[in-house]
Amino acid sequence: MSRSLRDEREIQRWDDVADVLVVGLGAAGAAAALEAARTGADTLVIERAGGGGGTSAMSGGVLYLGGGTALQRACGFDDSAEAMFGYLMASCGEGPDEAKLGVYCEGSVDHYEWLVAQGVPFKPVFHHGVSGEPPNDDGLVWSGSERAHPFRDIAAPAPRGHVPAMEAQAGPLLMRRLVAAVEGSAARVAPNHRCVALVRAPDGAVVGAVAEHFGAARALRARRGVVLTTGGFIRDDAMLAAHAPHLRRCKFRVGAEGDDGSGIRLGIAAGAATIHMDAASISLPATQPWGLKRGILVDGAGQRFINEDAYYGRLGEHALLHRGGRAWLVVDDAVFEKPDYPRRVAAVGESPAELERDLGLPPGSLESTLALYNRAATRGEDPAFHKAREYVTPLERPPFGAFDCTSEGSLYAAFTLGGLHTDVEGRVLDPAGAAIPGLFAAGRSTSGLSVGGYSSGLSLGDGTFFGRRAGRTAART
Amino acid sequence: MSRSLRDEREIQRWDDVADVLVVGLGAAGAAAALEAARTGADTLVIERAGGGGGTSAMSGGVLYLGGGTALQRACGFDDSAEAMFGYLMASCGEGPDEAKLGVYCEGSVDHYEWLVAQGVPFKPVFHHGVSGEPPNDDGLVWSGSERAHPFRDIAAPAPRGHVPAMEAQAGPLLMRRLVAAVEGSAARVAPNHRCVALVRAPDGAVVGAVAEHFGAARALRARRGVVLTTGGFIRDDAMLAAHAPHLRRCKFRVGAEGDDGSGIRLGIAAGAATIHMDAASISLPATQPWGLKRGILVDGAGQRFINEDAYYGRLGEHALLHRGGRAWLVVDDAVFEKPDYPRRVAAVGESPAELERDLGLPPGSLESTLALYNRAATRGEDPAFHKAREYVTPLERPPFGAFDCTSEGSLYAAFTLGGLHTDVEGRVLDPAGAAIPGLFAAGRSTSGLSVGGYSSGLSLGDGTFFGRRAGRTAART
Repeated sequence: MSRSLRDEREIQRWDDVADVLVVGLGAAGAAAALEAARTGADTLVIERAGGGGGTSAMSGGVLYLGGGTALQRACGFDDSAEAMFGYLMASCGEGPDEAKLGVYCEGSVDHYEWLVAQGVPFKPVFHHGVSGEPPNDDGLVWSGSERAHPFRDIAAPAPRGHVPAMEAQAGPLLMRRLVAAVEGSAARVAPNHRCVALVRAPDGAVVGAVAEHFGAARALRARRGVVLTTGGFIRDDAMLAAHAPHLRRCKFRVGAEGDDGSGIRLGIAAGAATIHMDAASISLPATQPWGLKRGILVDGAGQRFINEDAYYGRLGEHALLHRGGRAWLVVDDAVFEKPDYPRRVAAVGESPAELERDLGLPPGSLESTLALYNRAATRGEDPAFHKAREYVTPLERPPFGAFDCTSEGSLYAAFTLGGLHTDVEGRVLDPAGAAIPGLFAAGRSTSGLSVGGYSSGLSLGDGTFFGRRAGRTAART
Repeated sequence: MSRSLRDEREIQRWDDVADVLVVGLGAAGAAAALEAARTGADTLVIERAGGGGGTSAMSGGVLYLGGGTALQRACGFDDSAEAMFGYLMASCGEGPDEAKLGVYCEGSVDHYEWLVAQGVPFKPVFHHGVSGEPPNDDGLVWSGSERAHPFRDIAAPAPRGHVPAMEAQAGPLLMRRLVAAVEGSAARVAPNHRCVALVRAPDGAVVGAVAEHFGAARALRARRGVVLTTGGFIRDDAMLAAHAPHLRRCKFRVGAEGDDGSGIRLGIAAGAATIHMDAASISLPATQPWGLKRGILVDGAGQRFINEDAYYGRLGEHALLHRGGRAWLVVDDAVFEKPDYPRRVAAVGESPAELERDLGLPPGSLESTLALYNRAATRGEDPAFHKAREYVTPLERPPFGAFDCTSEGSLYAAFTLGGLHTDVEGRVLDPAGAAIPGLFAAGRSTSGLSVGGYSSGLSLGDGTFFGRRAGRTAART
């Protein structure tokens, strides 16, 4: 038997015993621990680092919530669970988990209240003009492609990026509050414990884990269940090569060191199924400030490929997966402005032909693309990709410029979305779809809401939401 | 414990005992059984159908072989293992298994001899003018993109599609001969046995299997090992939804009923790792006869996206994965000819503008694409996609026509390429990369040579090649 799976009969002595053992103290683990502890279950959280936080603490802190949360209402926005569900079903990649999306949208208003009750503060101010993460402590922001084609015609748009009140990067605040809540609960926290194996009873149920603590192995019994909340695998080259080799071309891998897929591997060793292991969030933040959406993104053939007003999570996925990471944002002098992210200007020229030559694009390609774009743009139209009218303007005033949006020269920020197959209650499933007794999971060690076409906040969203459910389910087992 | 994994101690009585148990009698299983039996190991092959053959018997029978086989030499072609390796490394998708490709290319000449020795006949005639499967019993054919950009500049091209001597579809002949060879060997064949579980010893080694035989469970002990050769999962909707949801849009799923992923699931339940589960062969046979390569393939934005002389396995992958299955092959009157496959003519028009309107493409898009293409084509050039000069000719003689190459209206033929993670000796690996004692696999239940950009013959090629290795390794254990 693999060393990452131990037979209960091998265990000579349990070093600690709890009802529920949570592995990993990021956002999902904190949520699981809080809910498990509140049911009265003796809850032990182990964390491989010296303290809680994980990747959630280095994130932007955005939570994708909606359906008419108190924050949305305070900012003057209407929303409904139906509209939110419609958008997510259409935008979350091919074949997202409809059941998970359903309970998530139905439960989103309550989940916001729960976060507030844990001490996570949100300032009731809507921030206009950027996507994803506001530069200040404003609380609500657009964090997806809700207003872009084709989604604007599918579901009523609403901003759903809920951002804790901390300037520029709210992940640290979110996790300070959630970890403080865990520490204030009845749950026990054991840092510097790296889980190296699950322990299985002869009947197949997971009954504990073995953790390494400063070099020593500690056997931890879990009377009711183990909850894996160990994060994704963007930091593990072998797993990337096996499941999502294209991600190796992304310069910025969004993940703490712990995002090495350890929990996913532990689950597999215990017979768990994994799903959507190729799925990823791939962001190309090329259109901040929004005025840059008036430029056009072209690929290696000098052709457009997407409506440039789509969210940057969508831009990055299309550019990397469907255009081989060959892309440039072309602007004219009227549209040019300094982008938020330092990005290389790949070429400047007095004419499209000059630009095209400097970029090494096929002769005539960019000229032809711009001519076609400009012809409709003079009427404010974009019949090819349906960019919103406010961003459609002819690009004709020299000089022309091209920002480098290639995977070599630009920032593609990626993390993995595939992982353990779980049901809506957080139970880990085997390949036949049966729950593995005693094994639960949430967060990026599982496949959650999004299997592509990422909107920001879905990972902290599903991690905390389904983390709570996994914790409750384990505690009630 | 999952019912698809049994503890050895549960088994009251073994109904049969062998040294090596092979699960599935397709090409990989036949190869495994032949080699295991020849070492002297008592070999039992179980097959869920009433007879051997599996998907291999409904295939075109092409084997991708090279490096200078007797057949290549008899047809007057030079080839080398280096050239073959160079082509496959460049064409087999992102991050193929270099070690597997290496031993495969080195061993390809010998493997051809082995196939001949099993009674598989090849007629030493090269067939020019079609890709993949010759319409007669000729033995050698182009079955990949070797002569197309960018591969022609990476490795010296050679035809490597080795086709058993049977008209039009050689899979049945290949499997008749291989199954006959198995029946003539010391291996025992037990049809109508569906494997429902692997049996594991307390130390983690796989020591047998449970098979269902006309409703009764039979426990089969394998002293040295179990070899899973059960095929892919193109016929299992749940697995497609979990791993390769886009394939559900392909009209033609290339696989016998047994391609439901059963062996992959059995492996997972025993702790095996799976890799590249999203990978697939997706064929769009839109350019047969080859004269149709002079047309241009355009997507839903009316833009070209690939050199049309690429092999149809590459065309289909690009059209489905990167263009959403929206594609049309546009020809003019000079280039028009009746295609081999019945394909719907989506539109005919006196001008590109008319065609574009009928197809619902953005106004001006096809006109612009054709103008740009024709400008360079008058010089015999294709600077955008580098189609070979012999297929580059301006498309300007009305009427113009468009063949339907959409996933709704055309034939996309797909099968899965992902599966169990094995090493070059056929050992099944766990997520930590360690071999699971007693468990071996080959063929489409494993991830083999290709993880994309398919060339025909790679599956029968790696199935038989690594099937032999898996059989030998198991027998020697």
